[in-house]
Amino acid sequence: MPQPAWAQIENPLPPLAIADEEQLSRIETTAFRVLEELGLEFQNEAALEILARHGADVDRASGMVRFDRGLVREWVAKAPASFRIHARNPQRNLEIGGNRIACGPVSSAPNVADLDRGRRPGTFADQCDLIRLHQSLNCLHLSGGMPVEALDLPAATRHLDFYRAQLTLADRAFIARGIGRQRIVDAVEMVAIARGVDRERMLGEPSLLSVININSPRRVDREMIGGLMAMVENGQPPIVTPFTLAGAMSPITIPGALAQQTAEALGVIAFAQMVRPGAPVVFGAYTSNVDMKTGAPAFGTPEYVRATIVGGQMARRWKLPYRSSNATSANFVEAQATWESLMSLWAALMSHANIIHHATGWMEGGLTASFEKSILDAELIDMMRAWLTPFTVDDDTLAFEALRDVAPGGHFFGTAHTLARFEHAFYRPLIGEVRNYEAWREAGSQTSAQRANALWKRMLEAYVEPAPDPAAREALDAYVARRKREPDAAAA
Amino acid sequence: MPQPAWAQIENPLPPLAIADEEQLSRIETTAFRVLEELGLEFQNEAALEILARHGADVDRASGMVRFDRGLVREWVAKAPASFRIHARNPQRNLEIGGNRIACGPVSSAPNVADLDRGRRPGTFADQCDLIRLHQSLNCLHLSGGMPVEALDLPAATRHLDFYRAQLTLADRAFIARGIGRQRIVDAVEMVAIARGVDRERMLGEPSLLSVININSPRRVDREMIGGLMAMVENGQPPIVTPFTLAGAMSPITIPGALAQQTAEALGVIAFAQMVRPGAPVVFGAYTSNVDMKTGAPAFGTPEYVRATIVGGQMARRWKLPYRSSNATSANFVEAQATWESLMSLWAALMSHANIIHHATGWMEGGLTASFEKSILDAELIDMMRAWLTPFTVDDDTLAFEALRDVAPGGHFFGTAHTLARFEHAFYRPLIGEVRNYEAWREAGSQTSAQRANALWKRMLEAYVEPAPDPAAREALDAYVARRKREPDAAAA
Repeated sequence: MPQPAWAQIENPLPPLAIADEEQLSRIETTAFRVLEELGLEFQNEAALEILARHGADVDRASGMVRFDRGLVREWVAKAPASFRIHARNPQRNLEIGGNRIACGPVSSAPNVADLDRGRRPGTFADQCDLIRLHQSLNCLHLSGGMPVEALDLPAATRHLDFYRAQLTLADRAFIARGIGRQRIVDAVEMVAIARGVDRERMLGEPSLLSVININSPRRVDREMIGGLMAMVENGQPPIVTPFTLAGAMSPITIPGALAQQTAEALGVIAFAQMVRPGAPVVFGAYTSNVDMKTGAPAFGTPEYVRATIVGGQMARRWKLPYRSSNATSANFVEAQATWESLMSLWAALMSHANIIHHATGWMEGGLTASFEKSILDAELIDMMRAWLTPFTVDDDTLAFEALRDVAPGGHFFGTAHTLARFEHAFYRPLIGEVRNYEAWREAGSQTSAQRANALWKRMLEAYVEPAPDPAAREALDAYVARRKREPDAAAA
Repeated sequence: MPQPAWAQIENPLPPLAIADEEQLSRIETTAFRVLEELGLEFQNEAALEILARHGADVDRASGMVRFDRGLVREWVAKAPASFRIHARNPQRNLEIGGNRIACGPVSSAPNVADLDRGRRPGTFADQCDLIRLHQSLNCLHLSGGMPVEALDLPAATRHLDFYRAQLTLADRAFIARGIGRQRIVDAVEMVAIARGVDRERMLGEPSLLSVININSPRRVDREMIGGLMAMVENGQPPIVTPFTLAGAMSPITIPGALAQQTAEALGVIAFAQMVRPGAPVVFGAYTSNVDMKTGAPAFGTPEYVRATIVGGQMARRWKLPYRSSNATSANFVEAQATWESLMSLWAALMSHANIIHHATGWMEGGLTASFEKSILDAELIDMMRAWLTPFTVDDDTLAFEALRDVAPGGHFFGTAHTLARFEHAFYRPLIGEVRNYEAWREAGSQTSAQRANALWKRMLEAYVEPAPDPAAREALDAYVARRKREPDAAAA
């Protein structure tokens, strides 16, 4: 396979700022006003109890919680600026924060698509194939997030099958299902089994992530709070992500949507710190716009780029790790999916995102996980990784002798300097066509999607289960079997 | 047509640096060594005469010219950091330099392509249609560069037909054919006629550009020198562009290729200043790599991104306007063409390019001008323009009242704040699909290229010749008729 070796990405670029200090401060002040004057609704009694105990202004009847800005500052400041995630394979451990980037694949899509079988509801077999493909892609640092829903399995227990698949088919840390307390408890138990560590050690060694979405505007629902509390109590980092689509769940103006995103993220992060001071958390950003004609979410747009970059400025202001995405609303793998994804990826890089969620395979605003898009995205990410590696200027790369030895109008193909380097000098594309028009036509005029189709199949054929551990496998099987026998297995 | 209004782009981003001061200095020092120890070959007696007179070390027999770094510094310093280009329509005048960006379309392709007629050798009719399309695109600040060769016209005089088409079908400043002195003299004469100014005034009012390519490595051919001298003598700015493809015409290592690009550009720019001190010039960059399996040029690659950004650092170091490109080697309009172009455009922005040449429609490393790619590129450029416009944070955009008026879990679709802004709040795509999967399928599952196909046809139907001037037209006709009667009309 032509891909570069697995390694976490170091981002050497200076973070880009498009809002100045005063603008950022005004967005933050509006976020404080949202928290102080309007409040967030927490649909969970236990959460209200904790919030009241720590000095938030709680209205038990409505569930509305108002946070003084001093309270927010005090509690959010307890969150660490970076932390380590421990994978089943310690060589896949990740640093989350600073200049590091970790990419995770598509998560939570109801549909799956490929060129051979078309677009269809996801199954457990698709989910497993996607996990295998993700494990095979060196650009991915995290495994899913349930990459596609296994709609052929019972809803209440399909997270157990997903966790077991994730913990046997892949060796990377993964993103658990954050909806409801029990699903997180199951994830923590099963990751502990797979890592061969006890719950006490898990408390000090974050080993999984979970996206905690806010039902924007200003509502945190019972199930999400359950999942969040279980994550934090167990020392596992939630990615707190408001669902702020400008024009629908947020004001139509990006500064307003960002004020809301900031308020919602900071309010929930402050709550997380009240549950467990010093708990690792991630500031999640998802702000984009909807198309105002159709009401459909749009991604990779100019508004999305801006929101991502200013969101990153805000996360850095609060010294929190930052999550962005590789997002597109395109319906199939071609030009639009490419430009929306590449705009998203550049914005993630320039905003110094620490986690790029949905980095491969995400289509249609999250409705579909695509096999071919996974390969296309791997190409885009690998190109980014390539140009972000350190730039080396020395006698060898300056090549004065080669410059001297080639006469005016000559060429460098045959020089010793070229011959010694030609195999590894340049990035080698995964699916990019390097033949000219005539040769490409003669070879069948393949599209990038067709080339991606051939590559993911080769990757699945070459896939080998990483470090199978029969004892852990048996223990996971036993855990899943026991839990499936319990009534209401996914109860929050 | 859904496109934003015509306006030159202001680039508010800080220029990106990926080479540090020491690295940049080492590249520059290697460039000086190339100029001092190896030299550039000038295949033109008149040029050698001028170079010798100004203190360069000239070997008349071989045409090799060696430049002391002090001499290069002295002469290049005379070039202005920015200048104005005067268009036929004064509202299309452009500033070249500083934070301004001017985009020009595809130039010099031998083939033309569209979905209906396929890929085929260019004709004068295609050339005129492309000029009309470029005139219709608000993202373009310059007209061509002969957008496609008119292979159905005699080679010696087809530049005359091109200039006349350009000066009647479009109202923007354009890029003339830089090969040979006579072609530039014709351009200057004809632009003067179209603008209704005399040659003396043209001298102080740059009104056309021309790309002067160096036959890398280290050769400047007779025809290009003829064109360059004619440009400079007439006060018109050449875009001095080495043809430095790493692994072929340059060392396989990017720092070496950049040292060569720097040496070639600075040597020729120093010569231009000897011809006419203070002459406006542009530092042109084109450094990319070839695919080492096929030998074919590759564009929009990680190596291209790096070379473009460091090239921009070098141009700023020398206080010269900088030219980059929107480049791709892809064979048709789909994913690969999109990612290569978007990587090129981001690199151009981050490197603070002042001219983006081939900004629309360029395919296959320059072998084909594509109608559909023109529209795709317009979409990409318009998205960039949109997110680069000033970010406004005020009470209106912070939208606290809207945030207050929508209850938790509610939506903003119906608020007064949304209703007042929904039409112009967001970037409106030219061809991006905003419908969901089902609606898109029902409407025929169109590709971006198909949508682009429909749009360029609508644009050509809606095209109107800008400010026709019968007297200027007559004078241009007379000029062309007279010149076509002359023997050897294009003689250098």
